[in-house]
Amino acid sequence: MKAHTEYLVFSTRKRQELINITERVSEIVRRAAIAEGMCLVSAMHITAGIWVNDEEEGLKADLAEWLETLAPARPDYRHHRTGEDNADAHLKRTLVHHQVVLPVTSGALDLGPWEQVFYAEFDGQRKKRVVVKVLGE
Amino acid sequence: MKAHTEYLVFSTRKRQELINITERVSEIVRRAAIAEGMCLVSAMHITAGIWVNDEEEGLKADLAEWLETLAPARPDYRHHRTGEDNADAHLKRTLVHHQVVLPVTSGALDLGPWEQVFYAEFDGQRKKRVVVKVLGE
Amino acid sequence: MKAHTEYLVFSTRKRQELINITERVSEIVRRAAIAEGMCLVSAMHITAGIWVNDEEEGLKADLAEWLETLAPARPDYRHHRTGEDNADAHLKRTLVHHQVVLPVTSGALDLGPWEQVFYAEFDGQRKKRVVVKVLGE
Repeated sequence: MKAHTEYLVFSTRKRQELINITERVSEIVRRAAIAEGMCLVSAMHITAGIWVNDEEEGLKADLAEWLETLAPARPDYRHHRTGEDNADAHLKRTLVHHQVVLPVTSGALDLGPWEQVFYAEFDGQRKKRVVVKVLGE
Repeated sequence: MKAHTEYLVFSTRKRQELINITERVSEIVRRAAIAEGMCLVSAMHITAGIWVNDEEEGLKADLAEWLETLAPARPDYRHHRTGEDNADAHLKRTLVHHQVVLPVTSGALDLGPWEQVFYAEFDGQRKKRVVVKVLGE
Repeated sequence: MKAHTEYLVFSTRKRQELINITERVSEIVRRAAIAEGMCLVSAMHITAGIWVNDEEEGLKADLAEWLETLAPARPDYRHHRTGEDNADAHLKRTLVHHQVVLPVTSGALDLGPWEQVFYAEFDGQRKKRVVVKVLGE
């Protein structure tokens, strides 16, 4: 069994961003040099997530608007009594989920025709990490 | 380490369906012939998900109704400017999540007493795939 | 490849509780005695989940209140015709998701600075299990 681990670092310009990381994850899988296995992609900061869906501008805007409806930014979260202002980002991360396990088959990511992997930032403008761990043989 | 991969194909009659795939996944795990490991079950199309919950008709109807409340089918999603009409299906997949990792213990799926695995189709009536990858020894 | 499996048992005093299990999972990873791998933590009962987020009282109260808004306890779910009264707990589990895969690097859980692992009980006051399976080498 082989294990290969890398960390991606993001520092977004906007507070919220969706960043397509499919190619970067694919390259890590290539460097892992395994034929069969699994690749965990997990946001290490608790106001960011990983979303697997479509690279289509309209849908990405729909997602952002929809998350704002279900988990709106509001001043009156209890979490804000600590001085924070990002409780909605914690809830948005919960909705999209913060990780994905991607299958690796014949040495490459085994994705469906439209599956793209996104880093979903909900409270950016500072350095945040994603762990990518590939396990296999 | 052994790896075993199979693909399930679905072409539902209705646009939305919940299909219990527990037995089919169990059979794949048996064919993998491992004692200990993990089994990834992941919807490869971005308008379908995997749901682990109860095989109970009432609850399954509750889920469908609830998803419709939180992510309603509506004409005015931006995604629909591309000609698509399924933005709600992308959001519903996001809510139920599109994958699960099932533990394999002593050669079989290690599920709780009520855990059943469902393929959750939100935009069916065409061929769609689920990857099942078993890793272990 | 090594596999190590343990089960955590919970019997909460209140119907809903968030229990920080990070230390218990860390100890299981230590007992697994692997350097590199993955650790699956999965709630085996379908009215409980696993949440990875912040150990902060305000945020935990925000989460509970927010889940109640999105998936309220109500008498009129169809699932309740079976005699059950916990349909909302099934839906809340769906929102927070019921499992997480944690990376193991250099023999320990590879978590971000604020990542804590919680058992999220939505219908407690009885014995319920979580499977923890560590795979690696």
